[in-house]
Formats: sequence, C-alpha cells, structure tokens
Amino acid sequence: TENTLLAELQQVLEREIPMCAQMGIRVHQHTEDGLEMRLPLDVNRNHQQTAFSGSLNALCTITGWGTAFLLLKELDRSGNIVIRRSSIKYQQPVDSSEITARCHPIGESDRDYFLEMLDEKGQAKLDLAVEIPGDDKPDVVFGGSYVVFGG
Amino acid sequence: TENTLLAELQQVLEREIPMCAQMGIRVHQHTEDGLEMRLPLDVNRNHQQTAFSGSLNALCTITGWGTAFLLLKELDRSGNIVIRRSSIKYQQPVDSSEITARCHPIGESDRDYFLEMLDEKGQAKLDLAVEIPGDDKPDVVFGGSYVVFGG
Repeated sequence: TENTLLAELQQVLEREIPMCAQMGIRVHQHTEDGLEMRLPLDVNRNHQQTAFSGSLNALCTITGWGTAFLLLKELDRSGNIVIRRSSIKYQQPVDSSEITARCHPIGESDRDYFLEMLDEKGQAKLDLAVEIPGDDKPDVVFGGSYVVFGG
Repeated sequence: TENTLLAELQQVLEREIPMCAQMGIRVHQHTEDGLEMRLPLDVNRNHQQTAFSGSLNALCTITGWGTAFLLLKELDRSGNIVIRRSSIKYQQPVDSSEITARCHPIGESDRDYFLEMLDEKGQAKLDLAVEIPGDDKPDVVFGGSYVVFGG
C-alpha cells in the first residue's frame, strides 16, 4: 500500500543518509499533488532564526529523490537514484516551525518516456520541481535533475 | 590577524547555525587562492558511501557565506549576509574522508563595486563561485548569489 511505501522511504533515508535523521527530515504525505516531506525549524535554524539555506536545499533534494524512489516502485523497477545538478531560489525567509516541501507530480508522458529510456538504455533522466510554499508566492523554488541507473 | 578572523568565523558558524556543527563543517584556511572549508565524509555519507549531496551543497553555501563574511571584515564594514539563489553540478561522487571546498577569490574591481554599492545603497550583491576539486575536473561546481544588507 501507499503507507507501506512511504514508511519504506522513511526507513531508507534514516538508514542510508544519517544527515537526514540529524536534520529531522520526514516523509509527510503523497497525494495527487505530489510527495511532501517535512523539516523542523528548530535544529535547522540560522543566524536569523529562520531556516538555514543548506537544510532547505537538503529537504528539496531529498523530496525530489523520494519522488524518483516512489516512481520506481510504481513502475515496478529498481535502480540507483543520483542527483546531477540543481538550482534553487530562496525567495523569502522560511520561519514556520514545521517546513513542508512538495514535489510537483510527474506528468504521464514524462513517466512513459522515463520508463522507455530506463528499459531501453538502462538509465533515464528525471527533471523534478520542488517548492516550499509561501504566502503569495513560494518561499523556495527548486529544480533538480536526477539520473536513475537501472539495476 | 587572519587567524583571529578565521577563528571568529568558525565561532559564528558554530553558534549561529547548529547544523554546521552537526555536519562538522570547519574553516580550513584562507590563502590568495580563496577561503577553504572542510567537511568529514563520515556523518555526511549517503546510500553509496559517498558524500550526501545536501551536505556538499551546505558546505559550498557556507564557504561562499564565509567569503562574504571575510570581505566585510577586510572592508571594515558590517552587515547581514543572505543567499538569494544558487546552482550546483555534482560532476563526480565525492568519497575522500575529508572534503574541501574552495571559493574563488573576489577580483579587485568586483570588490570595489561591492563596496561602492554597499556604501551608497545600503546593500550589495556578491556572486561567488565555489568548487570541490577533483582529479582532472572539479567534483562539484557551485555558484551562489548573495546579498549583503549593511548595518
């Protein structure tokens, strides 16, 4: 089930990437609007008592990584997911005590193309957009380019 | 002296950004080739036993931030340094036990322009390039755009 998958993702992150646990990054929910992950402000604050940019970037990077993880499960494939590049805009300071990042869902044609490449070439690229919502516009906008090596 | 400044930068990071201490980010040296900061692989590893991209991004972000901090000291100015946007390329996995990032030094004309803006407008932008060196090409290439608000 979906909940089992999210619990598996949480376990993978905690086990394999110690800094995710240190930052308190947690899988929140996965809806038709995309995967959401959360970060507490507490240990991730900076000199302004807002969220440290490095932690916000890590949250967005992992939210994209988790989206690729769930896509592989959904397609019944396995593989190693690596981030190749990313860009991020810190548009507003983030000061909520629980910070949520959301990855835009992958469109159907992008998913089909991804699967085709993965099965034909053994690797496939995935460009993902992640946001930390704000009041009128997003506080943070992130774009990451991931590569999945089939295995 | 230079050493006192680097010790002050280290103290500011440890005191103000708890996640820097958790990651073990340390000021290494400041030469004519720029400011170098270091990160241990140990707590910052990922599922591949190489460095977690989120930690590498944080190291680069802070190396740029520290360069702006030292520039303000050098110019005898004070201010609040904020990152506005960045982009990063993870060209090769990083697997050395001590990881070093280096910020390219700020050219003389860029420094002059920065000071002029800061004194005239009360704020100034600083675009900084940070690398994690590799064997033939850099393992990681980072560009960050910072804003300093004079105070």
